[in-house]
Amino acid sequence: MKIILVGATGAVGKAALDALAPRHEIIAVGRSSGDLQVDIEDLDSLRTMYRNVGKVDAVVSAIGHGYFGAVEGMTVEQFMQGINYKLLPQINLVLEGFEYLNDGGSFTLTSGVLNRDPIPGGAAAAAANGALDGFVRGASIEMPRGIRINSVSPEVLEVSRQKYAGFFPGHVHVSNEAVGLAYSKAVEGCLTGQVFTVDFG
Amino acid sequence: MKIILVGATGAVGKAALDALAPRHEIIAVGRSSGDLQVDIEDLDSLRTMYRNVGKVDAVVSAIGHGYFGAVEGMTVEQFMQGINYKLLPQINLVLEGFEYLNDGGSFTLTSGVLNRDPIPGGAAAAAANGALDGFVRGASIEMPRGIRINSVSPEVLEVSRQKYAGFFPGHVHVSNEAVGLAYSKAVEGCLTGQVFTVDFG
Repeated sequence: MKIILVGATGAVGKAALDALAPRHEIIAVGRSSGDLQVDIEDLDSLRTMYRNVGKVDAVVSAIGHGYFGAVEGMTVEQFMQGINYKLLPQINLVLEGFEYLNDGGSFTLTSGVLNRDPIPGGAAAAAANGALDGFVRGASIEMPRGIRINSVSPEVLEVSRQKYAGFFPGHVHVSNEAVGLAYSKAVEGCLTGQVFTVDFG
Repeated sequence: MKIILVGATGAVGKAALDALAPRHEIIAVGRSSGDLQVDIEDLDSLRTMYRNVGKVDAVVSAIGHGYFGAVEGMTVEQFMQGINYKLLPQINLVLEGFEYLNDGGSFTLTSGVLNRDPIPGGAAAAAANGALDGFVRGASIEMPRGIRINSVSPEVLEVSRQKYAGFFPGHVHVSNEAVGLAYSKAVEGCLTGQVFTVDFG
């Protein structure tokens, strides 16, 4: 398959890349590195990316950032960071991607653990994750031409243990291999409308 | 208890009102009717509402609308209607409501069935619902002063059977009483971080 992987240079994207690259042609997209440099939060840049790449068999997104902080005292602008920087770019990848996705292709979005196993300060991220998981469930039943859509919702990665030290008390750390398997299932499997959680392994 | 009920004149709000009014002082808020008329989508109006009402023991929201239509061909502006008109007003009720909510009080938001049992055309609404459910889960663990937060996620109401005829094939219709019980549990019970689904009754 020919696969666009957006966020390929992040921790999660690297896990997806390692799982898929041995068997597929990957166009690795990053903000400042990778095969293509794209600011995926900018709709024009996203559209240019699709035009440059052309037809693909799968679109995989492993992007997103947002606000972390207490709910009490949070502004709506802070809340919206998760919507604007995690939810919307991934929604736009779908809405703009139909014409570039071959029949039977797939979209794979990335949410995360915080809407099922929250941490203090993670409410805005939990909302963005819930929106992504809800969207793939809702969209899956009406995708045209056999196109599938799923999300991968990983726990904290082992490779990010130091980066997030202290923020996820009691959370499991999962291996790149375990996370990669979820992307493999989403891209190479047959299920749709699923949230592939990665809570161990 | 003294309870602000936003969206009190809608179908879902009416079910909540009927369940809570016999035992509590309800300030029924509607767009054009009720005890107070407030455009809850307007942040200034929302803030004015809180200032006028003062301290309360519970804030219940039963509002929200958004775009219904196929994912293929949907614009990001259409997708955002669910975010702007269902998610954000309810988030703002929480973010702006802390100083008006008494110790041990509660926020109750309303999502809906579409992120767990989707219908064609419902993907944008499913995203908004998922965000609401994710937010209450995430926010619940860090609410100050014993404040609780939950969502109620009802199936289609029996009273809305004609309004939505044909759009929810195979979906159950639930009674006002069953929906009201969920709001009663959210306001008068002790749980927090829960999505109270109403799928039968």
